[in-house]
Amino acid sequence: MKALFFDGSLRFVADARRPEPGGNEALIRVLMAGICGTDMEILKGYKAFRGIPGHEFVGVVEAVRGPYTGLVGKRVVGEINCGCGTCGHCLKGMEKHCARRTALGISGRDGVFAEYVTLPARNLWEVPAHAADIDMVFTEPLAAAFEVLEQVHVLPTHKVLVLGDGKLGLLIAILLHNSGVDVALSGTHEEKLAIAAGQHVRTVRAGEQRASRAYDIVIEATGAPGGLDAALDQVSPRGTIVLKSTVADRVEVNLSRAVVDEITLVGSRCGPFGPAVVALASKRINVRPLVSAVYPFDDALSAFDRAGQAGSLKVLLDFSANR
Amino acid sequence: MKALFFDGSLRFVADARRPEPGGNEALIRVLMAGICGTDMEILKGYKAFRGIPGHEFVGVVEAVRGPYTGLVGKRVVGEINCGCGTCGHCLKGMEKHCARRTALGISGRDGVFAEYVTLPARNLWEVPAHAADIDMVFTEPLAAAFEVLEQVHVLPTHKVLVLGDGKLGLLIAILLHNSGVDVALSGTHEEKLAIAAGQHVRTVRAGEQRASRAYDIVIEATGAPGGLDAALDQVSPRGTIVLKSTVADRVEVNLSRAVVDEITLVGSRCGPFGPAVVALASKRINVRPLVSAVYPFDDALSAFDRAGQAGSLKVLLDFSANR
Repeated sequence: MKALFFDGSLRFVADARRPEPGGNEALIRVLMAGICGTDMEILKGYKAFRGIPGHEFVGVVEAVRGPYTGLVGKRVVGEINCGCGTCGHCLKGMEKHCARRTALGISGRDGVFAEYVTLPARNLWEVPAHAADIDMVFTEPLAAAFEVLEQVHVLPTHKVLVLGDGKLGLLIAILLHNSGVDVALSGTHEEKLAIAAGQHVRTVRAGEQRASRAYDIVIEATGAPGGLDAALDQVSPRGTIVLKSTVADRVEVNLSRAVVDEITLVGSRCGPFGPAVVALASKRINVRPLVSAVYPFDDALSAFDRAGQAGSLKVLLDFSANR
Repeated sequence: MKALFFDGSLRFVADARRPEPGGNEALIRVLMAGICGTDMEILKGYKAFRGIPGHEFVGVVEAVRGPYTGLVGKRVVGEINCGCGTCGHCLKGMEKHCARRTALGISGRDGVFAEYVTLPARNLWEVPAHAADIDMVFTEPLAAAFEVLEQVHVLPTHKVLVLGDGKLGLLIAILLHNSGVDVALSGTHEEKLAIAAGQHVRTVRAGEQRASRAYDIVIEATGAPGGLDAALDQVSPRGTIVLKSTVADRVEVNLSRAVVDEITLVGSRCGPFGPAVVALASKRINVRPLVSAVYPFDDALSAFDRAGQAGSLKVLLDFSANR
């Protein structure tokens, strides 16, 4: 099969071995995949990953070993964390926190930048027939946005600020606005802020924003080391900062500000697929303006070049030309 | 009146002017006061405070201007934060987060290391007649310990670890144990850990503790810059770290650990006086083993020397010799 391999450099391979599903796993033919910021980090050495990257996808189940054989022939999206199934975290349904987990295309498991991929069948969510691949491929990142609502009780009286107009910041701001939350998005890119404004999200230029200490909840999605300090400038005493940026390096912060003002900081990562599937399939959340380009999978290396350009948002890989 | 003054150095003054209560304020004759870690920080320049330090006290109300005249003659303890009374935080009962607040003996307001002090009468809590000054003078620090229970819902199934065997760490560990919580105290001082062990708190030597990632809640009360890293080593994925240390300098941390493991960090400062008064007056919490020494107020400078010695816990100032 065709696949992208990363072993220090990214290569397109035409004759990769098609994976075999293990016990309780499904074999999935990939229809569409998305390039994520984490994929770009992997190219820089994140997690020292070697193999086939990619974790955002829509596919069709071709075979299942074990239960869930009813999924064969269905179009699906899939959760990326695969736990051991037996530890305390897994037994509580928190496979994403299993110490022995693998993560699709990120850690210990080949990903979706290939014609075929395997995943535990229990990780899969069937996609409604009427829903478009180009929408449903946003399920994983939108789930990460939903995780904010899963972790923090946002009140009708709360003022919320999202810092960062990258893909995740945009998705969070659009989701919150569509959930009835009084939210503003702060960013530095005119054209990205315009996407949020086009969906009626209030936007503000980061450079023009003074330290307000006025927001009940600030969501830090800048991906930059200075993001937490910026969040502390905007959050109200007793407020909450949701940390979405995984900044690889150590960050220097004045945590006594968080103690004196009794700020709560909430680390937030992957989220629930259920509500993300519903929101995308019902078109409650419109992700189309976030698509910068769609490339045939054969041009995957060009797609990565495009994803790395300043101003790019989501770059998608379409496998249909391969069929 | 006699008072301790700090203006870059600490001086004992025999002829300080007795303060006059302003509107809605009470004049209080101090009976006993406690030296806190924050007082020691003030001597090093914390908040650039100038004036009479001290914020832990028991006293008798001598006069009240405005309402609450029923307090005259009563023995009281007092909350240290004095808000403007008109901003959003004050109107929500959060004077401690008022941007224009003063804080007794810490910021903008003379404190209790003096024979007389003034405070808004609404800040005062009457002390039961049978309760001893030497217990009730712990109300303010015990309230800061209670703040943990006010902010975090500790479940019966939770495993809790307190980092730091200073006064606050000991009070938190003893309070949690007495509240039925499965708690351990980690510290470096044999004799301080022995105080907790004497009250049936499980103790562990910090140096002998490996990174466990096993505690649902970790309370960081080390007062040291490395405390947060130590807490991240012990907290479970999806767990909570309560930040009690106000480390003045900027701290370098790997916050991506908090994001990936979805840790919640909760800044925590002053707490509720009501439950602290009840717990101390009823002797539910035994604070006597934390008293390292009691000095007559005339020897206050010696008391500060003692408080600064390694191994010292609470050093108290007794004003009764002055009467």
